[in-house]
Amino acid sequence: MRSAVALGGGHGLHATLSALRRLTDDVTAVVTVADDGGSSGRLRRELGLLPPGDLRMALAALAADTDSGRRWAALVQHRFGGTGALAGHAVGNLLIAGLMEVLGDPVAALDEVAALLGLRGRVLPMSCDPLDIEAEVSGLGPNGALIRGQVAVASTPGRVERVWLRPERPRACPEALDAVKAADVLLLGPGSWFTSVIPHLLVPELREALITSPARRVVVLNLAPEPGETAGFSPEKHLAVLSQHAPELRVDAVIADVAAVPVPERLHRTAAAMLAPGGRVHLAPVAAEDPVVPRHDPAALAEALGAVFAELERQTGSAHHDAAPATSGPAPEGQETRRSNPWR
Amino acid sequence: MRSAVALGGGHGLHATLSALRRLTDDVTAVVTVADDGGSSGRLRRELGLLPPGDLRMALAALAADTDSGRRWAALVQHRFGGTGALAGHAVGNLLIAGLMEVLGDPVAALDEVAALLGLRGRVLPMSCDPLDIEAEVSGLGPNGALIRGQVAVASTPGRVERVWLRPERPRACPEALDAVKAADVLLLGPGSWFTSVIPHLLVPELREALITSPARRVVVLNLAPEPGETAGFSPEKHLAVLSQHAPELRVDAVIADVAAVPVPERLHRTAAAMLAPGGRVHLAPVAAEDPVVPRHDPAALAEALGAVFAELERQTGSAHHDAAPATSGPAPEGQETRRSNPWR
Repeated sequence: MRSAVALGGGHGLHATLSALRRLTDDVTAVVTVADDGGSSGRLRRELGLLPPGDLRMALAALAADTDSGRRWAALVQHRFGGTGALAGHAVGNLLIAGLMEVLGDPVAALDEVAALLGLRGRVLPMSCDPLDIEAEVSGLGPNGALIRGQVAVASTPGRVERVWLRPERPRACPEALDAVKAADVLLLGPGSWFTSVIPHLLVPELREALITSPARRVVVLNLAPEPGETAGFSPEKHLAVLSQHAPELRVDAVIADVAAVPVPERLHRTAAAMLAPGGRVHLAPVAAEDPVVPRHDPAALAEALGAVFAELERQTGSAHHDAAPATSGPAPEGQETRRSNPWR
Repeated sequence: MRSAVALGGGHGLHATLSALRRLTDDVTAVVTVADDGGSSGRLRRELGLLPPGDLRMALAALAADTDSGRRWAALVQHRFGGTGALAGHAVGNLLIAGLMEVLGDPVAALDEVAALLGLRGRVLPMSCDPLDIEAEVSGLGPNGALIRGQVAVASTPGRVERVWLRPERPRACPEALDAVKAADVLLLGPGSWFTSVIPHLLVPELREALITSPARRVVVLNLAPEPGETAGFSPEKHLAVLSQHAPELRVDAVIADVAAVPVPERLHRTAAAMLAPGGRVHLAPVAAEDPVVPRHDPAALAEALGAVFAELERQTGSAHHDAAPATSGPAPEGQETRRSNPWR
């Protein structure tokens, strides 16, 4: 399980990548390109390019742990202050935008920044075209409402029922497809569920690759519902809406924070419907202590992921792992996943 | 004469650097920091940093002649288009500005971009503080007028009599002083005469270093007067105003384009007052053919500079070069300086 592809966007993907880099050098991030807010949204509207913010954060998460890597990571993450035309723009967003214009190829532009940061792994967009998210939302009146745009969907006071993309059937980034097909393990989540995680399943070629890749599939659940898009959502509800958007998807592991799952039985029950043979839910302490906002602790998430990967590898090593019941179903909380991490 | 320091700004400095890099790897650019127009002016006002534009152009002029160097040079020189908040900003200006904020040190920021471009040599600001140019201008009315700002001075319909800086006695960049003191040769010009060339003589420590350095001093004259700041100026007038601003300055060579000097005797006469023993005026074909705007041809300027350097080295090699009359005074046009360049 040397080769990992993490799909997502924003702070959630940053957390996954920060954990994965502790386990392997072969990490590819496949990043949503539907952001329409903040610095990314301004650049996208002004220049007609892919929104660079989530791509930049993924690059920073994988920057080399060297003086040069840290210095350039600090630069790309730096935001101009003040109240002028540049206020709020991250330098990395402007750099990525400039490279996309000069090179005329988003993947080449990202590879260039990756080299600058001494990257472990690679960062790719899920599509080479900027996309928009639309959502059907209930609870805003007698009829369902249709909401357009990542910011609007993420902050709706209504209840998101379903999301789709505009254009509805975008092409996937070919390099991202190749990475998914060649991966040993695919990670979905954590992250803004409707606007950063599920969109990957809405790009037809990418969905097909995610479902059919020989890789093992791991879902990492959020630590808490997000005001707006997932307000009031339980962990099992997160899993259920993921499955609604891709009923054919089978996963080999679901990782959730011990303290974030009030009723484990419900999560196990919902997960059962989408688990591959031998798959199970892993409850582990993966939250950072005392955070201002809920976030995953990279070391703890790495430990949990390492244990899950090791378990999946043992299954692969067994000739008839489909029939091995011992590793299936609920396990004692925090026990399996607290063993020392063989990847370190 | 392995170590050259070129002082100036804008397109003029770009031309000198493009020529010098053909002669030696040890080139330092010392760049004016008084620009208040365009992308630089906007960044300077918005962020309170050194105006980065002239620094960026100097960096691009010295970028490594490799795939990577050319790619990054194209990026830093790329300007965003459109009509939005970023329109007209060069990517390199934003990159330099971001690095200045993150590193808190303009020289460290420039060294970082230099490494990115695989630079031959180094680019330094003449001062670490942004400066303003003020000018006394005649011909705008019965009394002399006082004009402030590089753009205003460069485009005045009046006649610039004298320029000075605000603050009036800025500190020089220490690394620039060191470079001037250690150089084998110092180059002043070409470039916007009052706003890019003369300002170096108005920073007290830098003026002292320029006058007292053991280096040889070479002035490269402009190909034509510039509308605004030097409208109607003859080559000898350029030299005269330089001398007015720094009467103690002695130079070892003045290079002018053959076709840009209508009356060579006048130039020789004006130069005589500021030439060091053994110094002389060199007329050589250094203009690019059929340019949209007058500009120096890098190869031709390199050839002329190489010949001048060789002559100065021969003088240094002679025990009593002060008394050697053969190399002093007017030489046949384009003859001395057309010999094959020993540096190549």
